[in-house]
Amino acid sequence: MENKTIKNEAITRREDDFAQWYTDVCLKAELMDYSSVKGFIVYRPYGYAIWEQIQSYLDRRFKETGHENCYMPLVIPESLFNKEKEHVQGFAPETLICTIGGKNKIEDPLIIRPTSETLFCEHFSKIVSSYRDLPKKYNQWCSVVRWEKTTRPFLRGSEFLWQEGHTIHETEVEARNETLAMLEIYDELGKELLATPFIKGKKTDKEKFAGAEETYTIEALMPDGKALQSGTTHYFGQGFSKAFNVTFQSKEGKLEYPHQTSWGVSTRLLGSIIMVHGDDNGLVLPPHLAPIQIVVVPIAQQKPGVIPAARKIYDLLRKEGIRVKIDETDRTPGYKFADWEMKGVPIRLEIGPRDIEKEQVVLSKRNTGEKIIVKNDELIGESKKLLDLIHKEMYEKAHRFLLEHITEVRNMDELKTTVDNGGYAKTMWCGDEVCETKIKELTTATARCMPFNQEPFDNKCVVCGKKATKVVLFAKAY
Amino acid sequence: MENKTIKNEAITRREDDFAQWYTDVCLKAELMDYSSVKGFIVYRPYGYAIWEQIQSYLDRRFKETGHENCYMPLVIPESLFNKEKEHVQGFAPETLICTIGGKNKIEDPLIIRPTSETLFCEHFSKIVSSYRDLPKKYNQWCSVVRWEKTTRPFLRGSEFLWQEGHTIHETEVEARNETLAMLEIYDELGKELLATPFIKGKKTDKEKFAGAEETYTIEALMPDGKALQSGTTHYFGQGFSKAFNVTFQSKEGKLEYPHQTSWGVSTRLLGSIIMVHGDDNGLVLPPHLAPIQIVVVPIAQQKPGVIPAARKIYDLLRKEGIRVKIDETDRTPGYKFADWEMKGVPIRLEIGPRDIEKEQVVLSKRNTGEKIIVKNDELIGESKKLLDLIHKEMYEKAHRFLLEHITEVRNMDELKTTVDNGGYAKTMWCGDEVCETKIKELTTATARCMPFNQEPFDNKCVVCGKKATKVVLFAKAY
Repeated sequence: MENKTIKNEAITRREDDFAQWYTDVCLKAELMDYSSVKGFIVYRPYGYAIWEQIQSYLDRRFKETGHENCYMPLVIPESLFNKEKEHVQGFAPETLICTIGGKNKIEDPLIIRPTSETLFCEHFSKIVSSYRDLPKKYNQWCSVVRWEKTTRPFLRGSEFLWQEGHTIHETEVEARNETLAMLEIYDELGKELLATPFIKGKKTDKEKFAGAEETYTIEALMPDGKALQSGTTHYFGQGFSKAFNVTFQSKEGKLEYPHQTSWGVSTRLLGSIIMVHGDDNGLVLPPHLAPIQIVVVPIAQQKPGVIPAARKIYDLLRKEGIRVKIDETDRTPGYKFADWEMKGVPIRLEIGPRDIEKEQVVLSKRNTGEKIIVKNDELIGESKKLLDLIHKEMYEKAHRFLLEHITEVRNMDELKTTVDNGGYAKTMWCGDEVCETKIKELTTATARCMPFNQEPFDNKCVVCGKKATKVVLFAKAY
Repeated sequence: MENKTIKNEAITRREDDFAQWYTDVCLKAELMDYSSVKGFIVYRPYGYAIWEQIQSYLDRRFKETGHENCYMPLVIPESLFNKEKEHVQGFAPETLICTIGGKNKIEDPLIIRPTSETLFCEHFSKIVSSYRDLPKKYNQWCSVVRWEKTTRPFLRGSEFLWQEGHTIHETEVEARNETLAMLEIYDELGKELLATPFIKGKKTDKEKFAGAEETYTIEALMPDGKALQSGTTHYFGQGFSKAFNVTFQSKEGKLEYPHQTSWGVSTRLLGSIIMVHGDDNGLVLPPHLAPIQIVVVPIAQQKPGVIPAARKIYDLLRKEGIRVKIDETDRTPGYKFADWEMKGVPIRLEIGPRDIEKEQVVLSKRNTGEKIIVKNDELIGESKKLLDLIHKEMYEKAHRFLLEHITEVRNMDELKTTVDNGGYAKTMWCGDEVCETKIKELTTATARCMPFNQEPFDNKCVVCGKKATKVVLFAKAY
């Protein structure tokens, strides 16, 4: 049974204006609201609940892999912030600075944390003295502030929510393993929760994190063909530990500098979810991520027996651990359908007098619009199967789109055409930053990453024609 | 079998210097560390894990009672903050203010939230228009900043972690019920998780929250006889909704102002837990709150079979949902004992070669020092029973102490002696703020609350001798 729902006129069509469609969904699905300060948004309960699902998944994964949560101060004295040179150059232009406390001028102005490497290092320098104290594998959930000129909900904000992991280790090998292990967890978050395929790779030196030796990334592709950096992990080597004088006595009794990492994902992921899966009727949420997995909509609910039957179904699903909601408001079914579609609930369950008679319900899939009639006694099993199926369909659709939008390019014309049309230009590169910069100047595309799969398909740099050493994916990006 | 452990010399004795003992425990139990900015502390993993337990309990209770989490901006423009007069007077002296963003001066300076009533009101004014939109029952977990001159870990900080609930309702009755219902949840948190009895009551007008019509409080009593305000709930009436022009169309079609509440508890609770239960060997954690409920310490762990047997016990307990840790470090058992006592783990489980032979383990209760020998096949049941027993013992001990330190006073001399000795002076009061102020001037004690139990024991105000209308508890306070 197929029954595509009618276009919801409350939001712009994607093909008419993708950016406006995005903003419409953010507001109409009640994910966020603006505040009176630009770039500082209100995370409304429905948007925040999606973030809580991500938190819950990652927090479990972090703890299972031996990480501990902690909380560092909100503010960093300017003098502390300035200790690591590359780091301060990267972040100083976008800092928010406090200069008045309790009506008095603050001598060493306080920067609202844009990221907390400096705070963790200061703390590590006090609590680490022996190899017995290592590793320290810490994480914190918090908000950070980066004063941005151009802001968009979730994608680029002056304040955003994130987690930042910070670890220090005895050896380089251990720290490097940590950097890659956390990238793997982010990738699995995409596969298992977000139904989003990422490309994993390493950032070029030009694109890496300020102060890092190496930055790894997961990159998603949006339907408009632009890439979205969705999470990064950094290997710092001993740069920060030297700048902050974090040392430890090794097993051999020598004073050494530990090796450090950091890694983070943010509420930017919400922007990715909206764009990757959404359609002209609003949000489409992957089932394992959705705060509400099934919404029960009683049909002709004023008729006797309908509400009790709907509630019975609701209780049944809830007891099975399915995140379910029942909509008993006095709105019309049509209005309810449109509203829950806008909010991207994966399955709508309709139950009316005729269904009750036949001991059945109607399940409607948000991602395809298909309807399925299910007998009451098969409901639990069928619902769980359907949630898994929807997840699979959504992942595969996004994966197909990604694969269709990676194009091997052999000259600058092909590169420009590819990134202009949208998608990744898979490019051979000599490794010289001059060539990388030239590509950006000519196309506005940036090096998203050097993917882990480095199989060369040509031997010449696409810019200078010299010997190519790396496969790089270029794309325009958010 | 009784075996009081030896005094841990790493920390000051309580009777020698209670304040120093407190600081010692905060640092040596690795609950927190100082940062380079006064009043901004590092919540170390062990301290943060205790906060996570509190979060987990309250978050469940809030959601069960229909509240939703959200997240409001970190900053409040000065112009918005100034809208409610009493509120701004209460908080303005201790604000931290940002004046520079992205290297430029900010025209309307941004206050780091000391509390978020103004932000919630601004948001409510945009999303509420009809009685159908009510109630809104929101909560957020975040940190807030109040620029304090004198700071102490957990008890008074420039930054602290908390939750703040904000709700708006159609009717006064509904809002008043919410204010009391949330106080009840805080009280149950004390009973069920913190093993801490609170006195519930209403604040005097002088002591209520800036901008509230009524403030309710839970007050705990510390071993040094000082009271600790541990959580508050506020009924705002329509004050904020009028100041921020939050209106809704009622069922009868009239434009009305909703009735509002807010309520919060903070990491101050950690300070209370440390003081209420701690002893000269460090922290003593209530079992349901403890991040580690049982620590397994292998004895003579180098001997064959000990570590495998200890791990088997560890796995067994873990599978039963008990929060358990095994200490296989190469420290001596004595050192381990002292360390886990310092950290307040409720039960230490010792297992050595002789225990293995006898198929038994030794359980040692942190709160009393008692040791109990338990056969392996009874371990699960006995452990659970023991955790419950320790909770009960700790609650009852604290409750006895509280009851012993409430003294009915009939004149100012008795009042002064009582609060000087430590504890609550139960006082009859005429209701005039002049008398309340006089008590504070003469004794430094403040009105902690008008307890819910208002049974009068005298008819004259303790200060002016006029007709008494209220029972008030006065005490010195943190």
